[in-house]
Amino acid sequence: MDRIVECVPNFSEGRQPETVARLEEAIASVDGALVLDRHMDADHHRSVITFVASPEAAVEAAVRVVARAAELIDLRRHTGEHPRIGATDVLPFIPMRGVTMAECVALALTAGERIAGELGIPVYFYGYAARRADRVNLEDVRRRGFEQLRAEIETSPERAPDFGEARVHDSAGAIAVGARHLLVAYNINLRTDDLTVARRIARAVRGRDGGLRYLKAIGIELGGRGLVQVSMNLVRHEQTQLHHVYEAVRREAERWGVQIAGSEIVGLMPRAALQKSAEYFLQLENFAPELVLEDRIAAALAVRHEIKDADDVTETGGVAKDELDTDGGGLS
Amino acid sequence: MDRIVECVPNFSEGRQPETVARLEEAIASVDGALVLDRHMDADHHRSVITFVASPEAAVEAAVRVVARAAELIDLRRHTGEHPRIGATDVLPFIPMRGVTMAECVALALTAGERIAGELGIPVYFYGYAARRADRVNLEDVRRRGFEQLRAEIETSPERAPDFGEARVHDSAGAIAVGARHLLVAYNINLRTDDLTVARRIARAVRGRDGGLRYLKAIGIELGGRGLVQVSMNLVRHEQTQLHHVYEAVRREAERWGVQIAGSEIVGLMPRAALQKSAEYFLQLENFAPELVLEDRIAAALAVRHEIKDADDVTETGGVAKDELDTDGGGLS
Repeated sequence: MDRIVECVPNFSEGRQPETVARLEEAIASVDGALVLDRHMDADHHRSVITFVASPEAAVEAAVRVVARAAELIDLRRHTGEHPRIGATDVLPFIPMRGVTMAECVALALTAGERIAGELGIPVYFYGYAARRADRVNLEDVRRRGFEQLRAEIETSPERAPDFGEARVHDSAGAIAVGARHLLVAYNINLRTDDLTVARRIARAVRGRDGGLRYLKAIGIELGGRGLVQVSMNLVRHEQTQLHHVYEAVRREAERWGVQIAGSEIVGLMPRAALQKSAEYFLQLENFAPELVLEDRIAAALAVRHEIKDADDVTETGGVAKDELDTDGGGLS
Repeated sequence: MDRIVECVPNFSEGRQPETVARLEEAIASVDGALVLDRHMDADHHRSVITFVASPEAAVEAAVRVVARAAELIDLRRHTGEHPRIGATDVLPFIPMRGVTMAECVALALTAGERIAGELGIPVYFYGYAARRADRVNLEDVRRRGFEQLRAEIETSPERAPDFGEARVHDSAGAIAVGARHLLVAYNINLRTDDLTVARRIARAVRGRDGGLRYLKAIGIELGGRGLVQVSMNLVRHEQTQLHHVYEAVRREAERWGVQIAGSEIVGLMPRAALQKSAEYFLQLENFAPELVLEDRIAAALAVRHEIKDADDVTETGGVAKDELDTDGGGLS
């Protein structure tokens, strides 16, 4: 696949594995859509499925899984701490490879139009797909939850959906459809049981309170281990980078005399984020993705295929000459 | 290519780009061999070409380029500081993907047999391909250079080649053919012009003098920048790891009151080395290659292809269930 969109629908069902498996099947039934990952959270009664697809397949797979969720999940019987407005609560489209944010906005709008028209579920657009300034933040769209929305949607113009009738779907509620950047979820564990410290550090490093611009952070307790955690989302990891986040937390922890016990990646991490961290900590002066052996092999294979496709076998000299200015692995 | 061998021949020609281009052509003329990189060093009058190939293609490409070098390079007219015994001086086979060291030894022996038999060049095996304990180290094989070898090979049993007649090829000399691990070349620049410091640090960190076992290191001056450098080879980067090397040099530099100005990768770096450095410095507790988004996509695509190959379209549920225990990118 040359052009890849990621899609990370969140569902209001985190306890029945059979239901989640049937949601995955709905996605995988579309040619060109690949389920990468799923996460069920029984406490929040919520699941997240990550899939990638070509732009065309992404909309079809999204609409199919939203339809399946509307059949299988009844929001009237759902409880859980996490705020939610729908059986499929959130449906973000994320540019991954060879796709722009503008295209993801267009995909979100197309999907939203079909969800409202074909399934009778009212649609709110958020993130880069938002049609109103007060709906850019997902939290603002779903803060008061399904029950409140059901009561207000028909009478309050402020709650009118962007697409569809001003009436929640009986069992499936409403849905927030959006376009956003890839989100990196990263947690740092601190060697203390003092929750105050984690909360202070979170406040010091996050963008909302003047810290790193594209970082969201909260302090939480880490039950079994007697530790606390700074739980974070990097909403634009190319701007607010992983290693800067680590160093900022480390510095703040030092101020409280606390050490970092470890960190964890939640979900999937783009390769570039890890490579940039290595580059940073190793103080590499000349890092470029072309220095990575596996990438060089892939590039050489791609050139060979192009050449074969062009039937131009006299040009099989490998990669372009101006890419060849680096050393061949040391004189040996 | 499922099975990949890397091959890094060194040639006694570092000044004529046309000659090196013709050597590259000889390699690329073999189907399944891909030139990744080349490096010419005019001072040492020496070049290094890095190519990858299937095991079968690797031997054929190696023999062809050794034959081409014997035509184009006349060692009798070659001068340069670097010790060398042949037009193609060194020819190592390196396991890269789906290939064992034992197989690379077999490839080295096959290539050596053909080079001796077809081209009349005497062959010395080194590294894992060595047939005698005193030839494991490449330095021991070529230390006294072509001129000395030419004088001694016919009379000294100690200098007898492993394959071929005890007589150097008139213009192409001899060749060292070997099997070894992938070598990572990594240099750290120090913010001082005191060469003594670089040399002391090199001695403190390298395996030969009791430091990190699989690390070779020397201290050198870095002409134009007024800096000195610890120039290093990690001969088994999975054992002696990049981040340990960086930290060892940093610590020793501190002891002399000197800071690290930067570092550089020479040639190509395996992806795993960078990822392990990121894991180390970020103190990641749960790192696994499966957490890297691009790798997960590649794995999902591979599963899909396997499924398609097996004509078993009822099983298109994406990756195996027991791989799916991680989060889907954070609740959003």
